[in-house]
Amino acid sequence: MEKTGEYKRNCASYLVNSTGKLTYSALGNELLNCAGRHANERGFGRKTTNEETFAWVLSRLVMEMTDMPGEYEDFYLRTWVESIYHSFTNRNFEILNANGRNIGFARSVWAMIGMEKRQAVDLVAMQGESMAMYVEDKKECPIEKISRIRIRATEPMAQNAVRWSDIDINKHVNSMKYIEHIFDLFSLQWHEAHPTRRFEIAYMAETRYGDTLSYYMDKVNEKEYTIEIRKNDLIPVVHSRILFA
Amino acid sequence: MEKTGEYKRNCASYLVNSTGKLTYSALGNELLNCAGRHANERGFGRKTTNEETFAWVLSRLVMEMTDMPGEYEDFYLRTWVESIYHSFTNRNFEILNANGRNIGFARSVWAMIGMEKRQAVDLVAMQGESMAMYVEDKKECPIEKISRIRIRATEPMAQNAVRWSDIDINKHVNSMKYIEHIFDLFSLQWHEAHPTRRFEIAYMAETRYGDTLSYYMDKVNEKEYTIEIRKNDLIPVVHSRILFA
Repeated sequence: MEKTGEYKRNCASYLVNSTGKLTYSALGNELLNCAGRHANERGFGRKTTNEETFAWVLSRLVMEMTDMPGEYEDFYLRTWVESIYHSFTNRNFEILNANGRNIGFARSVWAMIGMEKRQAVDLVAMQGESMAMYVEDKKECPIEKISRIRIRATEPMAQNAVRWSDIDINKHVNSMKYIEHIFDLFSLQWHEAHPTRRFEIAYMAETRYGDTLSYYMDKVNEKEYTIEIRKNDLIPVVHSRILFA
Repeated sequence: MEKTGEYKRNCASYLVNSTGKLTYSALGNELLNCAGRHANERGFGRKTTNEETFAWVLSRLVMEMTDMPGEYEDFYLRTWVESIYHSFTNRNFEILNANGRNIGFARSVWAMIGMEKRQAVDLVAMQGESMAMYVEDKKECPIEKISRIRIRATEPMAQNAVRWSDIDINKHVNSMKYIEHIFDLFSLQWHEAHPTRRFEIAYMAETRYGDTLSYYMDKVNEKEYTIEIRKNDLIPVVHSRILFA
């Protein structure tokens, strides 16, 4: 089987924003979906031993796009494993439009954790053999890795209780829902005038139904913002950076 | 071409709720998507004349399910036009699980409106010829039509500003987002103990970015609730009814 997987997708009407373009959270969902298919097809997806079930957990994601698929348009996602080290693996993506032209890249970092103990495993020891043969370290992913984010804001600019619709099958807030909430911090008018060029997110903790999310935001410059989401106004949950055009 | 269209779908991980089942808003999106494909394939989809573009607008939707597709499961949607009258058409749906067993039905009512004047057209006059040959009035859809809903509550139980993520390509709140917001009125614990069996929604007005949504709810009995969403606490926008198991 090829090291790189390619998946054809279609941009359904309910995945686009007011400008008719695929949203970053919907793109993120599509990337995660293809990552799962790629891993399952190659035998290193979710794993169950006698003792526990081990699943992939997303640690970091950065998406950098020069354009986005429009409503009803086909698009193509390519994904491959760049490296495996200790508890982590780097998985990259290339995004192509309906004509096969590149419109962006994404980078992600994943850990495999035991679902009961919530502890990361040593990937090289656990999945090394099955994964190593698929490592593709020659394919280029010409975007910067996710940067370190520090927030100076001391007052939240918004707060909301976790909603039923935020929660996924693991009983946590879905990782892509944080992206939607971060985009909701900016107005429709702002988004229509400033398409997002690059979006970074790092996950530090999980939140559940009953938690409150507080949003702390720094304006780095006219086109760059960094955001920290805190759980119950205390524990950092998510760090994020948006670069607008 | 067959009067009834059948479409195979897969329940992606990001479409399920905390119990691992497809949500009603996600099912609604899938139904709308298939309705669009069915109409386009048969030549009565969106229509552009010299003067204006005409598009389908959803007026009512009711979904009644005995089960829902689970995460990663395939499912099948069948859709057909039951009738055309004045400005409206009735379109029905049958939902089948991966084994081809029926798990539910849905009914919808649509109007075709001019996108500029926002006025409904006489469907029989405009689309009559192309649509009439596809009317399937013998196929059974054994669920009740949407009922008339009157709300007695005088105080809203919740309010929120329209969010950027609510808005679709038409610059209005997406019709399925109201469903998500209505489900968010009930707690995670409630939803986990009481799967929804039937969901009704009627659309009366459109809302935009900048509007506030207020939710008025009546408890009809232990398992039945009716909801009205008002725009800026004044204009009724949506009427809805939920029946829980």
